[in-house]
Amino acid sequence: MGQMAKRITVYEVGPRDGLQNEARVVPTEGKLALIRALAEAGLPRIEVASFVSPKWIPAVADSEEVTERLPALPGVGYVVLVPNEQGLERLLVALGKAGPAHPPVDAAVFISASETDNKRNANKTIDETFRDFDAVVGPALQRGLRVRGYASTVWGCPYEGKVEPRKAVAIAERLLALGCYQVSLGDTIGVGTPNQTREILDLLLGRARPGSIAMHMHDTRGTALANVLVGLEAGISTFDASVGGLGGCPYAPGASGNLATEDLVYLLHGMGYSTGVSWDRLIAAGELAQRLVGRPLPGRALQAELGARDRAEGGAA
Amino acid sequence: MGQMAKRITVYEVGPRDGLQNEARVVPTEGKLALIRALAEAGLPRIEVASFVSPKWIPAVADSEEVTERLPALPGVGYVVLVPNEQGLERLLVALGKAGPAHPPVDAAVFISASETDNKRNANKTIDETFRDFDAVVGPALQRGLRVRGYASTVWGCPYEGKVEPRKAVAIAERLLALGCYQVSLGDTIGVGTPNQTREILDLLLGRARPGSIAMHMHDTRGTALANVLVGLEAGISTFDASVGGLGGCPYAPGASGNLATEDLVYLLHGMGYSTGVSWDRLIAAGELAQRLVGRPLPGRALQAELGARDRAEGGAA
Repeated sequence: MGQMAKRITVYEVGPRDGLQNEARVVPTEGKLALIRALAEAGLPRIEVASFVSPKWIPAVADSEEVTERLPALPGVGYVVLVPNEQGLERLLVALGKAGPAHPPVDAAVFISASETDNKRNANKTIDETFRDFDAVVGPALQRGLRVRGYASTVWGCPYEGKVEPRKAVAIAERLLALGCYQVSLGDTIGVGTPNQTREILDLLLGRARPGSIAMHMHDTRGTALANVLVGLEAGISTFDASVGGLGGCPYAPGASGNLATEDLVYLLHGMGYSTGVSWDRLIAAGELAQRLVGRPLPGRALQAELGARDRAEGGAA
Repeated sequence: MGQMAKRITVYEVGPRDGLQNEARVVPTEGKLALIRALAEAGLPRIEVASFVSPKWIPAVADSEEVTERLPALPGVGYVVLVPNEQGLERLLVALGKAGPAHPPVDAAVFISASETDNKRNANKTIDETFRDFDAVVGPALQRGLRVRGYASTVWGCPYEGKVEPRKAVAIAERLLALGCYQVSLGDTIGVGTPNQTREILDLLLGRARPGSIAMHMHDTRGTALANVLVGLEAGISTFDASVGGLGGCPYAPGASGNLATEDLVYLLHGMGYSTGVSWDRLIAAGELAQRLVGRPLPGRALQAELGARDRAEGGAA
């Protein structure tokens, strides 16, 4: 009491990571409406675009336009994925067109902690991917951009199974050494459990500041918030999440199962942390996301809240 | 290594608590098949019936027949709800018909930690409900039955909001003092967050043995396993869960959101606890539960596992 609530940064990945993994491609105007709704809900960082080749991933073919038209709101910054030199060039052109008053935009590079998974996604070895980063991270930093690193399959790989924590931690360290201001550790297939999370964080936090580490958990098996709790106790203060759990349907084969932003914010607010997020506006953004993809989203707190509102309206009628 | 894994008891509530809250009434043969599948999966305690008035809850009108026909498997016991003297009498008649070799069956009494919720469910005050228990718990103990107590709305009430932890803890103590061997604390509406769980357990464990306390969490907002983690750290070793999350659909208004047994078992096994549960047989029980209610169940690990199997079959075809 009387103490300032500790601030936790909720890193919203719905408009890029979420939508990219949905069956329905959402048009640019819809994406921008969702980005605005999330920004107005007070989410301080929002992942919005990916400058990979549009041939690979048509869902992000409008990344230039999205980046040029990002809404400028106080305290809100954005992040876009740049896999290589060409991607960085496209980002810089888009930022140039957006003009000098564009909102803050960070670049992000991504790599898998598993050799097989990296090969399948990037068609390169981990070492080759790091060599590509040399042409991205240094130049991006020189142009005044911050760079975030994503390490995926840290808790497990769909091809190799368990990933050796020391190996995953080495990848994260290498990203930090390159100049990334933060590395987001991803449980890409949602297999993580708390003891494993503690082991990974213990190893990494012996070598890196808690502020330089984020966690990106998937709720594929319901364990995301238990792992977040371990992270909070270890001093982690940035967690990635996707509005409504966008990008993962529990009833669809191949469900990616992103942790839902509402579930994360519900836990954090319930534990007395501050996030700057407005609950009502976050729910409104979740409703918009549902309309855009045309189906109920898997986020539990979102559905609980919408269900309670339906009942209240029914009761009043 | 070399150390025995700590044993955690998973208390399966699907056949009663789960099915009772489903729209479709499952016929007796289906219930008994599900009970057998769960027993064969190694679940050591299964809630199977409720001797409330069948006029109130038609879904449990077959409680006599279910109780008479419970499969006897080594290490498997059952529990049935008995709200009052008449309920106990019906249970004793059913056990008499089942014959002297019937499997172990515990009785259970239930009460809400919130006065308004108790009034709405039992049409009695909390004190009046406890007076009714005098005619149930003592006689049940005298007949050689163990009695479990359920305290609901411990984390919050749909009518009163937050429930004062001291009040909830006093209800639990009163149930133990009556002679219950264990009290299961229920987060009936799934609002609990970890600090609150710690507060409730700290209060109660100052007065009761960890073994006399169970937790019955709902995953309505995705926080169930984070609360379970707090319970494990506090020494709790019994957790209630429902196969597939039976009894709560995330897309239905009024979702109760029972924690799914598969999600709980996945977390426990991932943390190195032993449960005696066979993963493959548990998934088979979840598939059966889905067929019985005719819809996909909300349990996340169940859907992840079934999705992985579908993909593996697709890949082999």
